[in-house]
Amino acid sequence: MTRLSRPHRPFQRLRRRAVKLNPPIVLLSGFVLLALIGAALLKLPISTTVPLTWMEALFTATSAVTVTGLGVIDVGQDMTLWGQLILLTLIQLGGIGFMTFAALTLVMLGGKMPLQHQNIVREALNQSSFNDLFHLVRLVVGFALFIELVTAALLATAWVPEFGWSSGLWLSLFHSVSAFNNAGFALWGDSLSQYVSSPIVTLSISGAFIIGGLGFAVIQEIIGHKKNTPWSMQTRLIVYATVGLNVVATLLFGLLEWHNPATLGGLDSTFDRVLAAWFQAVTPRTAGFNTLDTAALGTPSALLTMLLMFIGGGPGSTASGIKLTTFIVLLLTARAFLRGSTEPVIFSRRIRQEIVFKAVAVAFSGVMLIFLALFGLSISEPRQSFLDLAFETVSAFGTVGLSRGITSELSGEGQMILIVTMLLGRVGTLSLGYFLATRSVGNVRYAEGRIQIG
Amino acid sequence: MTRLSRPHRPFQRLRRRAVKLNPPIVLLSGFVLLALIGAALLKLPISTTVPLTWMEALFTATSAVTVTGLGVIDVGQDMTLWGQLILLTLIQLGGIGFMTFAALTLVMLGGKMPLQHQNIVREALNQSSFNDLFHLVRLVVGFALFIELVTAALLATAWVPEFGWSSGLWLSLFHSVSAFNNAGFALWGDSLSQYVSSPIVTLSISGAFIIGGLGFAVIQEIIGHKKNTPWSMQTRLIVYATVGLNVVATLLFGLLEWHNPATLGGLDSTFDRVLAAWFQAVTPRTAGFNTLDTAALGTPSALLTMLLMFIGGGPGSTASGIKLTTFIVLLLTARAFLRGSTEPVIFSRRIRQEIVFKAVAVAFSGVMLIFLALFGLSISEPRQSFLDLAFETVSAFGTVGLSRGITSELSGEGQMILIVTMLLGRVGTLSLGYFLATRSVGNVRYAEGRIQIG
Ligand SMILES: [K+]
Ligand SMILES: [K+]
Repeated sequence: MTRLSRPHRPFQRLRRRAVKLNPPIVLLSGFVLLALIGAALLKLPISTTVPLTWMEALFTATSAVTVTGLGVIDVGQDMTLWGQLILLTLIQLGGIGFMTFAALTLVMLGGKMPLQHQNIVREALNQSSFNDLFHLVRLVVGFALFIELVTAALLATAWVPEFGWSSGLWLSLFHSVSAFNNAGFALWGDSLSQYVSSPIVTLSISGAFIIGGLGFAVIQEIIGHKKNTPWSMQTRLIVYATVGLNVVATLLFGLLEWHNPATLGGLDSTFDRVLAAWFQAVTPRTAGFNTLDTAALGTPSALLTMLLMFIGGGPGSTASGIKLTTFIVLLLTARAFLRGSTEPVIFSRRIRQEIVFKAVAVAFSGVMLIFLALFGLSISEPRQSFLDLAFETVSAFGTVGLSRGITSELSGEGQMILIVTMLLGRVGTLSLGYFLATRSVGNVRYAEGRIQIG
Repeated sequence: MTRLSRPHRPFQRLRRRAVKLNPPIVLLSGFVLLALIGAALLKLPISTTVPLTWMEALFTATSAVTVTGLGVIDVGQDMTLWGQLILLTLIQLGGIGFMTFAALTLVMLGGKMPLQHQNIVREALNQSSFNDLFHLVRLVVGFALFIELVTAALLATAWVPEFGWSSGLWLSLFHSVSAFNNAGFALWGDSLSQYVSSPIVTLSISGAFIIGGLGFAVIQEIIGHKKNTPWSMQTRLIVYATVGLNVVATLLFGLLEWHNPATLGGLDSTFDRVLAAWFQAVTPRTAGFNTLDTAALGTPSALLTMLLMFIGGGPGSTASGIKLTTFIVLLLTARAFLRGSTEPVIFSRRIRQEIVFKAVAVAFSGVMLIFLALFGLSISEPRQSFLDLAFETVSAFGTVGLSRGITSELSGEGQMILIVTMLLGRVGTLSLGYFLATRSVGNVRYAEGRIQIG
């Protein structure tokens, strides 16, 4: 073989180079390409009612592809139905789509995937085991579309009577897709504020984005669950953490904002206030819709929101952030160490060193990215308040989309900083870690060194 | 034995309980006790020119014992010489003193230390090896006093001509002790602002606090160094990181503030500006003196200062923060993971898992402490700007003492929050980790669990 293939060396080299293609770079390039195509489409005169600048188009397209929802334009006012359709397509592609559709396409084209594509898809789904991938892809896409349709149907019961069939159905579809993908784009300038007291709107939308934020692995396990089999550790962890965080956050927002006349205090009934507190508690991880004025939240609530935006949803989901699992692994590692144990344990399973190191890499990179972006913004936007800039930065990193209202006031440099932050926040510092860590192995074994900590 | 000792059980139990005394609690209690005694002494009429409230006395004493330097009173104006002497004693006791004097006293009392005391002293010096302890204590106290005297002599060359012998010598002594202990207390209301262009004052004070911030182990190794023997990894790490961070921070502050008329831009010569940029760069880790108006710094500079305050100095030093080593271990762990290696390496030595876990515990606890304190302050101080509150919180955690001027405006609740933050910041989330981790061993070995990160 070796002898025979010698004349073909140039091809071999080419193939070898293709295999060596850095998967996270491919993933990032895919997002950038989608954002550029999206920007070009949004620039078309038929997409908008007012002409967009290239920066506005690029910002909006990036915000859609990364399922962020931060906006420099009013999607409901400035975009035509065609423009909104493009936006929705970018959201689906950037959310569940980019990954699962890539896999589906490859499967439908038949045959085996090249190794580097397998890696991309595997990273997309963040699945350690590769066997169930094809089944998973079909199941996930089906499930996602099913949830989106159910959500749209629920929303339609509110919006068809209000807006008539065509507008009502379009509004329902747009917001259900935007919800399941944790994209946070809404067709009203004040997001869902006018539906703050509507249980059908707020509960179906929050239901959709919470399910979208669980992650494919969890969804697969729950819907494919056999009776009398316990959930996997990962599924239990994410479900319990989601429920726990949402309940605690609802209580805290209720306590903090109950008497704020600009937020909960302005609502009539206790029920309305609890409903709004619930929505405010669940939207930061990382849906980004709002029913209360984010800029009117007190500083303590803003700070709490920033923590939730930083934590985010489940891995391999439509939500971003450092992820629930990352946060909990670090918490457990710290707790274990403070209790004198040498390894963190959860549900009677110890957490491997490699997983802790991965969590360190994700959280540390995330904090550094936020620090650098905020540092840049504090230079480019000297007039904005520090709290607003910090909030906007964390919102971009977590691809949340909540804003205290400064997005459209940012300078060109500021918007570029947020574009990069959204892309890196969505592609994930982890993609890097995941691919590289699974690719190479340490050949040199060094002796241990001694370092004092603290 | 078992049979014989049965009647003595009560005593055994007592002794066992004494041995079980939680060392970090003992350490924390020591600091609290010192702060209370200090507060009582500062409450004496002979200590101050104006009567202090209990809160002012407690805040000032805690600030001194934890070598922070945040102030609700003007030490130079409101305190008599006697009061200043008490303050200086608290600083020495809280800095080098608390630990080394405890060890010295025990040694001088003769005999062996009980195990729990050994632990306290060992934690104080943060030494893994216990053999050289007694030698180290004498060496460290001698070295500290020597540096303090040299610094005082250098300062005296500036201040004796200016203030005469008695005032000049007292000012020199006070500020040299405050400097070596990284305490940051000054006898002028605007700290060292009037000496911003004095090389002798700024360089001797910054020299003293940088040396004090290296940590005893480094000092011991450098002064007890044999020719042709390479420095230990730890010493190289701390020395290189100190030099690197200080140079980079000087450059950044120079760039950011060069044309700010309220800071560097207000100084006449390039030399003065470089000198002031240097001082501004080195004081956040974690000395706390200032020659520029901290509140006049631009937001980018304030952010950079907060990062430096969070990082802090070397372990086992008079500086606080999460420590240089903690930050670098996390940085290397993240970098190693992103590069696909399974373990972080420094100077061709791998860093053990336990050290990484320790760093996670220290940094995570630190971030959580800062978050909770800032959350509390944002509730108790609704009128203060978020940047000022965040700055103040990080300054208290790192026992830095830099302030944007809001310390004395804080409510009673706010001051209590800072008191707790200073104490926990100084005693160190790590004390907890160190003691407990070295005490117990995991008995149960759990199976490994799988968790997805990011
Ligand atoms: K979002
Ligand atoms: K200090």
